[in-house]
Amino acid sequence: MRHTLPPAALPQRVHIIGSGLIGTSLAMVLVRAGLSVSVADSSPTNEALAADLSGARRGAGEEVDLVVVATPPDVTAGVVLDALARWPGAIVTDVASVKGMVRAELDARRVPGIERYVGGHPMAGRERSGAIAARIDVFEGRPWVVAMTPDTDPAGVALVRGVAEAAGAVVRALSPLEHDAAVAVVSHVPQVAASLVAARLAELSEDAVGLSGTGVRDVTRIAASDPVLWTQILTGNAGAVARELRALAGDLDRVISALEELADGTRSDGHVEAPGARGVLARTIAAGNTGHARIPGKHGAAPTAYALVTVLIPDEPGQLGRLFRDVGDAGINLEELNLEHNLGQPFGQLELSVVPAVAGELTEVLRARGWSVHD
Amino acid sequence: MRHTLPPAALPQRVHIIGSGLIGTSLAMVLVRAGLSVSVADSSPTNEALAADLSGARRGAGEEVDLVVVATPPDVTAGVVLDALARWPGAIVTDVASVKGMVRAELDARRVPGIERYVGGHPMAGRERSGAIAARIDVFEGRPWVVAMTPDTDPAGVALVRGVAEAAGAVVRALSPLEHDAAVAVVSHVPQVAASLVAARLAELSEDAVGLSGTGVRDVTRIAASDPVLWTQILTGNAGAVARELRALAGDLDRVISALEELADGTRSDGHVEAPGARGVLARTIAAGNTGHARIPGKHGAAPTAYALVTVLIPDEPGQLGRLFRDVGDAGINLEELNLEHNLGQPFGQLELSVVPAVAGELTEVLRARGWSVHD
Repeated sequence: MRHTLPPAALPQRVHIIGSGLIGTSLAMVLVRAGLSVSVADSSPTNEALAADLSGARRGAGEEVDLVVVATPPDVTAGVVLDALARWPGAIVTDVASVKGMVRAELDARRVPGIERYVGGHPMAGRERSGAIAARIDVFEGRPWVVAMTPDTDPAGVALVRGVAEAAGAVVRALSPLEHDAAVAVVSHVPQVAASLVAARLAELSEDAVGLSGTGVRDVTRIAASDPVLWTQILTGNAGAVARELRALAGDLDRVISALEELADGTRSDGHVEAPGARGVLARTIAAGNTGHARIPGKHGAAPTAYALVTVLIPDEPGQLGRLFRDVGDAGINLEELNLEHNLGQPFGQLELSVVPAVAGELTEVLRARGWSVHD
Repeated sequence: MRHTLPPAALPQRVHIIGSGLIGTSLAMVLVRAGLSVSVADSSPTNEALAADLSGARRGAGEEVDLVVVATPPDVTAGVVLDALARWPGAIVTDVASVKGMVRAELDARRVPGIERYVGGHPMAGRERSGAIAARIDVFEGRPWVVAMTPDTDPAGVALVRGVAEAAGAVVRALSPLEHDAAVAVVSHVPQVAASLVAARLAELSEDAVGLSGTGVRDVTRIAASDPVLWTQILTGNAGAVARELRALAGDLDRVISALEELADGTRSDGHVEAPGARGVLARTIAAGNTGHARIPGKHGAAPTAYALVTVLIPDEPGQLGRLFRDVGDAGINLEELNLEHNLGQPFGQLELSVVPAVAGELTEVLRARGWSVHD
C-alpha cells in the first residue's frame, strides 16, 4: 500500500511526555530548532534531568500544538488517551516501537478525539537507555515511521513530519500492520537471535570465551539491551514475531539436520559422506548473502555506497595530527571515519568514508601533501 | 586442561602455502619482521599477487624451517602431508579453523613425520577474502590458537608462537577438542544465526527493508561471508556446531511458544493474558545480557575497558582540522576513534577511545585549547 505524505509543518509548542532516551533526545533537537518545548515524566528526577540536558521547560502549559508520548510501550495507549482529553486542541503522537497494539487499545476505548492521534515510531535507539544516554543526533538519517490509517488527519501527520525532519529523520508512511510486520524482521527477530547466541557464551570456559572476535561481538552487540523494555516490545508484536521466528526455526532445523548427517557420516580418516547436506549449508549461507545485500546504507533511504579512502600513517610523533590537519583543510565532509590500528606498529591506517563524488579530490589533496593514499 | 607454552622462537625461513587473506597477510608480517619468506598457491595469479603485496619470494627453496599451510580447510590435511614429506627438516603448521578433523585425517594416514605437525588457528578474518583483502594488521591483538596434543613437539610450538607473536597475535594453547567446542560457540553458531536472520530480509518490501537500522546491520554483518568457505568450516566442525544449535533451537522454541501464547491471549482492547509468557521473554533477553558481558574487549585476553572522551565540534570550516591537530599534538595513543556525525548539523561529536590512564590528560589538553569535552 502506498501512502501519500502531506508537506511538513512545524508546531510552535511541543510537550514531550516521558524523559527516556528518545523523549530527551527529541527535546534537545526541538529546543535547538527554536520551538517552545516542555517535558514531563512520572519520575521528577528524570524530568529534571531531561530539562537540564535539553533546555526545555518542566510541565506543559494549557496550550499545546503537539504532544509526543515517549513512554514505555506498555503504558503508551493510556498516556495517549489522557493527553487527547487534557489538550483538546492538540495533535497527539507516540514513539512506541509497536503500532498495531497501541491502535487496537485506543480503538477499543472509543474516546472522543481519537482522530487527533497520529501513531509514530522513530527507528532510533542505543543499547544504553535513559535521559543520560540522550543525544541530539540519535535520529539523524534514521527512518521515522508514521503509521497511517484511512482516517489519519493529514494536518496531524504534517506536524509529526515537521518534528521528525527537524530531528534529521526520514519520514516513511506505513500502515500499522505493515509497520509491525517490517519491524518484526528488521528489529525484533535480530534482537531475539542476538540474545540467544549471546546466551550460549554463558557456560564457556575463560579460555574458550577468550577466542571471541569481531564476528560474535557484532552479532551480539544488541544482546546488551534492556530485558524489561524488550519484553514489552516483543509482547506488543507477539504474533508477527512468532511467525517470523517460526520460519527461522524451520530453516535452523534444516541446518541442524544437515550438520548431524555430516557428523554421522564423518569417517575416522576425516572423509565425510552425507549427500546433499553440504548443499543445505551452502544455500543457507548464500541466502544470508542475498538478504544482507538488501540492507540499505547508514542514512536510511537508498543503499548509500560511500567511497573509502585509506591513508597510511607512519607511527611517528605528530603524524596523526598532521594527517588530521590536512584532512580538515581539505574541507570535505566525512561520512564515517575509522582508525584501523595504532598499536606501535610501523603503520596505522585511517579509513575515510566520503560521498563518491569527492573521493578523487580528497585523494589528490592528500597525495599532494605527501600521504600514501589508497582508494 | 591447562597447556604450558614453550618460549617463542623465530624461524629464519618460512614458506607459506596458500595465498588467500590469511596467507598473504602473514607473508606481509613476516617479510616486515625480516624473515626469509616464500609463498606458493595453486593459482599462479594469486601467488604472484601475494608476492607483490608482501615482498615475499615465489616458491620455496630446499631448506625451510617452518611451513604454514594456509589453504581452504577441506584440503588442509592433504597439503600438510605433502609438506611433511617434501621438507623433512621443517615444522609444518596450518591455519584451518577446525582442528579435530584435520588431526583425525592426519592420524588416519599414519605418515612418517607427523610429530613435526603443530595445528594452529589464527582467529583473524574479514568478510572479504583473497590476497587483495590482505592487511598487515589482521592478526593484531587477535587470539592464535595452538592445538596441543600430548605428543606435540615443544620446539615446533615455539616456532609457531614466534610467527604468531611477530604478527601481533596472542597465542592460546587448547586441545583440538577444546578448540572446536569453543569456536562452535564464538564463531560458527554466530555465523549460522547471522545468515538465518539475514535470509528473513529477502522477501521484505522496499519500504520494510528501509526500516533497517544499526541493530540488524550489526547482527547480519558476517552474513556477507563466503558460502563455500563456510560450508567447509561447518562441515569440519559439524558435531560440535549441531550440538550448540540444537540447544539454541530449544531456547528458540520456548520463545516462540511464549510469543504464541501472548498473541493468542491478546484481547481486542490490547490487554494481554498469558501467565508466565512474559517471564520467558525477559529471561531470554537477560540471559543474553549475561552471555554478552563475558565477551572480552577488542584486544583479546582480558576485557579491556577504554575510556571514552567525547569532543563537540562546531560545524564550521576548519574546526575538524583544528581538533585533529590538537589531538595529534597531545601525543596520546588512540585505540579507537569514531566521528558521530557530520551532516550539516551545528555540532558533530568525535569519540576518542583511550586507555583509562590518559583520559584525564587528553581531556585537560583539549579543554585548555578551548574544546567542549565530555568524559
